[in-house]
Amino acid sequence: VTPLPVLWVNGERQPPEAAHVSALDRGLTLADGLFETMRVRHGTVFRLDRHLARLRRGLDVLEIPAPPGLRDRVLEAVRVAGEAEASVRITVTRGVGAGGVAPSTPGCPTTIIALNHLPVVPAAVYERGLTAHVASGRRNEHAVTSGLKTLAYTEAVAALLEAQHAGADEALFLDTASHCSEASASNLFMWTSGALVTPPISCGALPGITRATVVELAAGLDLPIQERAFSLDELLAADEAFLTSSLRGLAPLVRVSGHPIGGGTPGRLSRRLMDAYATVVEQECGAGVWR
Amino acid sequence: VTPLPVLWVNGERQPPEAAHVSALDRGLTLADGLFETMRVRHGTVFRLDRHLARLRRGLDVLEIPAPPGLRDRVLEAVRVAGEAEASVRITVTRGVGAGGVAPSTPGCPTTIIALNHLPVVPAAVYERGLTAHVASGRRNEHAVTSGLKTLAYTEAVAALLEAQHAGADEALFLDTASHCSEASASNLFMWTSGALVTPPISCGALPGITRATVVELAAGLDLPIQERAFSLDELLAADEAFLTSSLRGLAPLVRVSGHPIGGGTPGRLSRRLMDAYATVVEQECGAGVWR
Repeated sequence: VTPLPVLWVNGERQPPEAAHVSALDRGLTLADGLFETMRVRHGTVFRLDRHLARLRRGLDVLEIPAPPGLRDRVLEAVRVAGEAEASVRITVTRGVGAGGVAPSTPGCPTTIIALNHLPVVPAAVYERGLTAHVASGRRNEHAVTSGLKTLAYTEAVAALLEAQHAGADEALFLDTASHCSEASASNLFMWTSGALVTPPISCGALPGITRATVVELAAGLDLPIQERAFSLDELLAADEAFLTSSLRGLAPLVRVSGHPIGGGTPGRLSRRLMDAYATVVEQECGAGVWR
Repeated sequence: VTPLPVLWVNGERQPPEAAHVSALDRGLTLADGLFETMRVRHGTVFRLDRHLARLRRGLDVLEIPAPPGLRDRVLEAVRVAGEAEASVRITVTRGVGAGGVAPSTPGCPTTIIALNHLPVVPAAVYERGLTAHVASGRRNEHAVTSGLKTLAYTEAVAALLEAQHAGADEALFLDTASHCSEASASNLFMWTSGALVTPPISCGALPGITRATVVELAAGLDLPIQERAFSLDELLAADEAFLTSSLRGLAPLVRVSGHPIGGGTPGRLSRRLMDAYATVVEQECGAGVWR
């Protein structure tokens, strides 16, 4: 077992303190690239193919050539790292640029695979729930890159700074039409009037892999599911809410800009879906199976 | 005289083929940083202090500590490069991160100074004018980072790809309320009903340094100036239009998504302001003065 992080840049393993990309890489100079962050459980990447499919859709839109053999390289990276529980991030950029915003020749994409420790999520996040602050900036549902996991996370960073100053754990984005969109790097669900509701992609939400998993699980549990726009007022009046992301899984959302949601504590349905999600991760990743 | 590009990363001069930043730098992983691009004329950086002031405002918003002595380092870089005509780009990121979107400790910002050749602008750009394609994605005037020159240029890259496919030179962004905003990396001006009009920052436009210079020049020429929102229809019906940026200066805009503006050729007022701009650059940068 190798200490984490472990990094590969363009297929070359580099020690974390020396892992580097060109200072002229368009991923750095223009956020001209995409990424995926996945959970490794029992040595298996949960829903790797879904993440790779989303990455490929983004690469298509940005017309960045897909790096060949990416799936095998990720699996090899996980095997070599030898950590059963970890996060793995794939970053693909357009590569070194000649200057200017317009991409010139197809170029040579940069690929980074980084295995790292899972973020430390305090037990209180799952037991007591998260608080969120409504970001003063809005998600742009009218961007061509909306719904793509591009490197452009500056607005999310700014929103999290606001949230930190407000004493909240998370930032909640509204879209430009004042519908609830998503958190800084998580999708949003609420339970209201007997239905599980999540904002559609047209509200600027990322088509999250965990989001899709929750929708499948809810369908399997015969819970009514609605993908529809809703206001902040409707969220605040909901019976329950939770956030979903690949590394944190499902985390109850119990307070938004000071207003409690439901009883201000994690709800029963959220717990039920958290359990169902844990079960599907165990099922798909197996126990002690390395693949 | 050293061949360009010449790069300094955190004060250390690095050969361009080896200049690098950490693969864990948040500038790369999250576009968590800002930049400025300036023109060097006669060895002098045009309006360096204005660019540094804008950079500092952005660093304040993102709570990234301002790198000390930045002004002196830029001047030294220009002196060492020894090129009288060049571009210089300053990039400041939050530095290496531990993972996750939320910034943790203040950290240690990464500073890159890059001297490069001025982009080759064909004479036809100034003589015949630019064509633009209206981007299908919108500028987000409701972002906290709107008006900041962050590294998040992914949407501009995507818009330029659309423009290229449409056979246009440039991408023109509308904001989410369908007002004209700016081009991919240039501000927009039009001449209509005897007034020079440019979108306000509240329409998602960057507070461009060249834009501010043009406003000053127009005031000096006693031209009526309006900073106000306007529609695409109004732009298409304008007598003249032009784009402004630090490296390209003023460039006439003669066609938008197939519709000619004015006569479809550079207008008289655009030429007058282009001349006035060239004059102010010569005045402020001097001739043969290195400073």
